[in-house]
Amino acid sequence: MNEKGLLIVLSGPSGVGKGTVRKAIFSQEDTKFEYSISMTTRKPREGEVDGIDYFFKSREEFEALIEQGKLLEYAEFVGNYYGTPVDYVRETINNGRDVFLEIEVQGAQQVRDKFPEGLFIFLAPPSLSELQNRLVTRGTETNEVIQGRLNTARKEIEMMNLYDYIVENDKIENAVEKINSIVQAEHCKRERVQQRYIKMLEVE
Amino acid sequence: MNEKGLLIVLSGPSGVGKGTVRKAIFSQEDTKFEYSISMTTRKPREGEVDGIDYFFKSREEFEALIEQGKLLEYAEFVGNYYGTPVDYVRETINNGRDVFLEIEVQGAQQVRDKFPEGLFIFLAPPSLSELQNRLVTRGTETNEVIQGRLNTARKEIEMMNLYDYIVENDKIENAVEKINSIVQAEHCKRERVQQRYIKMLEVE
Repeated sequence: MNEKGLLIVLSGPSGVGKGTVRKAIFSQEDTKFEYSISMTTRKPREGEVDGIDYFFKSREEFEALIEQGKLLEYAEFVGNYYGTPVDYVRETINNGRDVFLEIEVQGAQQVRDKFPEGLFIFLAPPSLSELQNRLVTRGTETNEVIQGRLNTARKEIEMMNLYDYIVENDKIENAVEKINSIVQAEHCKRERVQQRYIKMLEVE
Repeated sequence: MNEKGLLIVLSGPSGVGKGTVRKAIFSQEDTKFEYSISMTTRKPREGEVDGIDYFFKSREEFEALIEQGKLLEYAEFVGNYYGTPVDYVRETINNGRDVFLEIEVQGAQQVRDKFPEGLFIFLAPPSLSELQNRLVTRGTETNEVIQGRLNTARKEIEMMNLYDYIVENDKIENAVEKINSIVQAEHCKRERVQQRYIKMLEVE
């Protein structure tokens, strides 16, 4: 069956626990995702293997790949480039496997532009749900503190516009379960399954 | 939190096992759904309780409710009316609980017209996936048998147009797991969750 895999993008505000959730997903015995290996210009650390931990490239190579549009997203961080090579993602998807990407919000924006058919999941801080309680206790807080919280919340809620799903990271196991469910549901979407059946009939 | 529940409609061709899957869903200890109680003009059988097994009504009452648009869907079967009362569904949803409806394809069509925001799940027979294998063995089958299978398959695939998701009933436990995932994913849809956060801020 030549059904394409999905590109799953997990993102969210910094500090929300994206990396922890990603590790929990890949520590499941029956994880069905392929992890997208990043490309970087930073030097390999002891024990790191090219093509497993990262794709290691020189600065010149990386910049040439940017020029050629070979990166789904990239950013520079403390003097080194980090990015997601598009070929690996496309090949894996074409082989019918789901690719999982865990990236910063800015990167997710770049991916959405180039790969709008991806499945974009926003990991939300539980502090958002606690906001109401926190605001109620304002008698004990300065106005500045309250305004700060409101501004952060407004920014986080606005960030969500880009995404298909929102998963609150209240507990890692809950977040993992929800992400698994979202991907399983996506595989049951009518357009997807119906097309598979139609193709079967076309063989006739 | 005054978030509305979902209306989940499970349907599919007759004989596919809708009733079995529905029973399996409600036999889960932690099932999160409310089962929509049907209304009927048939006489209660021994042990059946009004408001639990069915809402029992006279023919006149039922027809008055049809007139008043109080049925999400209804059909006549061996001289008796069967239908889904809309008030129970709306009340339950407004109380934030998900309502589960298992009905025939014709009924699902009526529900879609009146309640387009419902979550429509088509239970597909595993024979559809086996179609390719079955067609390949055609050397041993008459042309008539093959044409019959193709016609049934085409009709079933066309029925799917109405639905949001398709779940193949290959194994009951797989179907139940997928239905649970679809509902959980729906609760994580961005519009839904983002609206909840926005409302929290509005309280301010």
